[in-house]
Amino acid sequence: MSKIIIHGIPGSPYVRTPLLVCEEKGAPYELAAMAFGPGATRTPEHLARQPFGRMPAIEHGDFKLYETQAIIRYVDRAFDGPALSPSDPRALARMDQVLNIVDWYVMPSISSAIGFNRIVKPIFGMPVDESARTCVKALEDILAAKPYFAGEAVSLADLSAIAHLDFLARTPEGADMLAGSPLLGWMERMAERPSVAKTTMQKMMNLPESAAA
Amino acid sequence: MSKIIIHGIPGSPYVRTPLLVCEEKGAPYELAAMAFGPGATRTPEHLARQPFGRMPAIEHGDFKLYETQAIIRYVDRAFDGPALSPSDPRALARMDQVLNIVDWYVMPSISSAIGFNRIVKPIFGMPVDESARTCVKALEDILAAKPYFAGEAVSLADLSAIAHLDFLARTPEGADMLAGSPLLGWMERMAERPSVAKTTMQKMMNLPESAAA
Repeated sequence: MSKIIIHGIPGSPYVRTPLLVCEEKGAPYELAAMAFGPGATRTPEHLARQPFGRMPAIEHGDFKLYETQAIIRYVDRAFDGPALSPSDPRALARMDQVLNIVDWYVMPSISSAIGFNRIVKPIFGMPVDESARTCVKALEDILAAKPYFAGEAVSLADLSAIAHLDFLARTPEGADMLAGSPLLGWMERMAERPSVAKTTMQKMMNLPESAAA
Repeated sequence: MSKIIIHGIPGSPYVRTPLLVCEEKGAPYELAAMAFGPGATRTPEHLARQPFGRMPAIEHGDFKLYETQAIIRYVDRAFDGPALSPSDPRALARMDQVLNIVDWYVMPSISSAIGFNRIVKPIFGMPVDESARTCVKALEDILAAKPYFAGEAVSLADLSAIAHLDFLARTPEGADMLAGSPLLGWMERMAERPSVAKTTMQKMMNLPESAAA
């Protein structure tokens, strides 16, 4: 199979997600790094790839695709390597659920942790901390005593969630929120994976590993 | 298979989506209608089903699930009846992409059409009309000359999108925006489906069919 070209700004959790999945699959890819800065995602060239001015967008031969969930599901199906989606329908439903929780709730909570309070608060109609805590609790409930969100094996759900939660854990308020959480054991398991180690924000942005988020 | 219990407020596009999918599959279901009103989705009973206070949430025997995308993918897999997901990987990626476009972009545009301008505008950083038009254009580009978003057959993508776009088309500004759009042919095809006719907002809320949205 030809190489996947991934367009996006290094360090973004949504750009990291397909990188993680390509790493886990052993799928050949190339990160086409976009500049960080105002308007970077709204150039005519990028809007042709992603009309909403978001990231990431991919090309695979003549096939173009945007939306992270669609991209990672496609990579999982299109390449050999370990299956990243469980076959049991209920386990698969849990994977799908976590992918959406990441989009709907983790993403705004993370955004709030890095300062978008003015956007997040009116949407949730409640204090940001409460929204983020609800999020952490919902993920804890789904993880329960399982090693991974969809069961015994890593799935797309874990790879999507770690891209955001790793980021959260590196902020002081996020670390407080995760203190004592059963998610920490899962984060340790995830941190041991080469795909996760290879794609940290520090590595992606060429920062020292000790740099704060 | 036992009946699916769907909790939600009748008339909500996100509640309609699983109803459409159950109808298309011929899956047995029951709508457990929640009252419409302030705080309706934040009762302790509902928060136990959906900790973020959103809709819908389902029960299938002892299996509980929330998040619309996860629910409809589960119903498609768990029941006999026509497959609502294509088997070709690229067609399936298009379906996945549209499901996410609905969540990320159609939903806020629809919300804007019914008056949530204050929430939507700061997120997109641009006038609401432009955001909604970008949305309609992106869906037109994906539909292209195909009868349905993922190809020759109806998929979850069409059923998700119609629940929102049908609603949009019934508002004066939405009708203006869709005038002359290639999406109208698709909407006509969708309107002919019994599942769509059976679950209109008017039917769900016991309103006369002529009632405006």
